[in-house]
Amino acid sequence: MQALVFDKRLEYRRDYPDLAPRAGESIVRILLAGICGTDLEISRGYMAFRGVPGHEFVGRVVETSNPDLRHKRVVGEINAGCGRCVACLGGLTRHCPNRTVLGILGRDGTFAEFLTLPDENLRPLPDSIPDDAAVFTEPLAAAFEIFEQIHIGRNQSILVLGDGRLGAMVALALDSHSYEPLVAGHHPEKLERLSALGLRTTKSAPEGKFDVVIDCTGQADGFRGALERVAPRGTIILKSTAAAGAELNLAAVVINEIAVLGSRCGRFAPALEALAAKRIDPRPLIDGTRSLADGLEAFATAANPSNFKILLKPA
Amino acid sequence: MQALVFDKRLEYRRDYPDLAPRAGESIVRILLAGICGTDLEISRGYMAFRGVPGHEFVGRVVETSNPDLRHKRVVGEINAGCGRCVACLGGLTRHCPNRTVLGILGRDGTFAEFLTLPDENLRPLPDSIPDDAAVFTEPLAAAFEIFEQIHIGRNQSILVLGDGRLGAMVALALDSHSYEPLVAGHHPEKLERLSALGLRTTKSAPEGKFDVVIDCTGQADGFRGALERVAPRGTIILKSTAAAGAELNLAAVVINEIAVLGSRCGRFAPALEALAAKRIDPRPLIDGTRSLADGLEAFATAANPSNFKILLKPA
Repeated sequence: MQALVFDKRLEYRRDYPDLAPRAGESIVRILLAGICGTDLEISRGYMAFRGVPGHEFVGRVVETSNPDLRHKRVVGEINAGCGRCVACLGGLTRHCPNRTVLGILGRDGTFAEFLTLPDENLRPLPDSIPDDAAVFTEPLAAAFEIFEQIHIGRNQSILVLGDGRLGAMVALALDSHSYEPLVAGHHPEKLERLSALGLRTTKSAPEGKFDVVIDCTGQADGFRGALERVAPRGTIILKSTAAAGAELNLAAVVINEIAVLGSRCGRFAPALEALAAKRIDPRPLIDGTRSLADGLEAFATAANPSNFKILLKPA
Repeated sequence: MQALVFDKRLEYRRDYPDLAPRAGESIVRILLAGICGTDLEISRGYMAFRGVPGHEFVGRVVETSNPDLRHKRVVGEINAGCGRCVACLGGLTRHCPNRTVLGILGRDGTFAEFLTLPDENLRPLPDSIPDDAAVFTEPLAAAFEIFEQIHIGRNQSILVLGDGRLGAMVALALDSHSYEPLVAGHHPEKLERLSALGLRTTKSAPEGKFDVVIDCTGQADGFRGALERVAPRGTIILKSTAAAGAELNLAAVVINEIAVLGSRCGRFAPALEALAAKRIDPRPLIDGTRSLADGLEAFATAANPSNFKILLKPA
C-alpha cells in the first residue's frame, strides 16, 4: 500500500507491506488523516519511532470480526493497552506501561491507506459529524482531557499560551464549556482567524496575572513563559512534550506555590459529543489537503507557522 | 547586640546595631532559634540576602504597643505583607508581592538577640508547648501547608524523599494526620532515628509506584528522583527550592500526566494545634544547642548530613 514511512528520514513509499489482521483488531481504510506537532517532532527523531507516523484520522472499517463495526465510519483511540495491568483494568489504557500508541510507539499510524487498531479502540461516528470535522477528534479529545484532570472555577482567568494547532484546540474546547480563555501568540494572521471563531486573543499577555496558564507553545521555553504569566498559587497545564530538557527554574514553582499539571491524550467521548452537537466546528482551521504522494510537501506546509491544520487524503 | 550577620560571608558580631521599633511592630527577645536548609543556602549566597539570617524562633515580647502581646512568649509568621494588595486582603500575606520575609528577604532574622515583626505576625504560645518544641513551629507549619493545598486520599501511597530536617517535618505532619508515609533516605543512622519515632523508612524506594512523592531532598536532582518514583497520574510535591536551574525532562510530566505542586510556608495554627495536643513531639530531632558566639560552628554542624536540627540560644 501507499504510506509515508519514517526510518531516519521521512519518505513516500508505494510498496509498503499490506497489513495482516491481528486477533481482536480491525482493518480501517483511512479517509482523512491530520498532521500534528508530534508528527513533525517524530519526523525529526522524537520517540526514536520507525514506521508509519500519524495518529489523527477518520476512516471506514473494511475488515473485522466484530459485526458492530462492519463497514462503519470510525475514529480511533490511539493508545492500545495490554488489557491485563492495573491501568487497563481501571479503564486507563492511556497509561498502560506496555501500551502501543498509533503512529508514535510500536504501531504503524495513519499516514497510509490502511491501519489496524483493536476493536475496542474504534468509535463509530454519527452521520452528523462530517469527515473533515471528525478528523479533529483526537486533538480535541486531548484538549478536553484538561476537564478530566482539574476543575477550573468560573471566576478564574485562563491564558492559552500559543496560537498554533494545539492552542486553537484547547481554546475551542474551553470556549465550548463557556469559559472565556485569552489566547496569546506571535502570529497576527492566526490570531485574527481565532478571533473570527469568537475567541479572545492578544499579542502580549501580562505577567503574574492568570489563575490558569495552558502551555500550548510547543516550544522548549514555553514553560518559562507560563511561569512568568501565572499568578501565585496558580496552575500551569503542560499540553506539549516540547519542554523536554529545557533548563528550568523550579524555585519559582515552590516560592509561588504553583501547580504544574501534565496533560496528554483524552477519552474520545467528550470530543465526539461536542462535534455532534456542533458546539465546536474546527473546519475553519484546515489549511490544505494533500495526497500521500505529496506527503513530504504536506509536512513542510504543516511546519510553516502560518498554518493550522494540513490533512492527508490517501485516495 | 550580638548577631550572626551575612554579607558575602557569615560572621559573628557583638556590635550589630540595636533595633528601632517600627509602627505596628513589636520587639522580641529571642529564646531559641533553629538553623534550617534555607539558612545554609543563604550562607552560600541564596536570595542575595544581606543582614541577619534565620526565621525559626521562639521568643518573648519585650517592647510593644499592643497590650495583648506584652511580655508574651511568642512564635512569629515570617512573611510580612503590605496589607493593601489583593493577596494581603485575601489573607495570603505569604504571597504579597511586596512582602519582606524574616531573615530571607529585606528583614533581619532570628540569629540575633532581638528581632522585630508586625504585631499581627506574632502568635502567643500556650504553656503546654515548651521552648524547644515551639522553635519547630515554622518548619512544621511549612509541612502542614501540604494539607491546605491538596487532599490526599486514604488509599494513596505516599513517599517522602529525603531523610533530613525537611523530610522529618513532613513525615511527622503526615503521621499526625494518620497517614503512613514511607521515608526514603541515604543516612542509616537518621532513618533509624525516624523509625524510633514510629515512621516507616527505606534505603531504596521502588520506581513508578507512589501516588504522592514529596521531594524533601534539598538537592538539585531531587525532582528527577521524584519523577522516577511517582506513578502515572500521580502527584509530586516540591518542598524545597533546591531544584533551581536543574536540567529537567518535563516530557515525562506530560506523558505520565503528573501533577507537580510547589509548596512553601504555611499558616502557624495547624502546627501549634498539633504541638499543643502532643500529636507531634519534634524534640528528639535536636542535635545540639549553641551560643551566637559559636554560630559559625553551629552552621558547620547543621551542614553535616548526619544531623537533624541545631539550635542557637542567644543568652
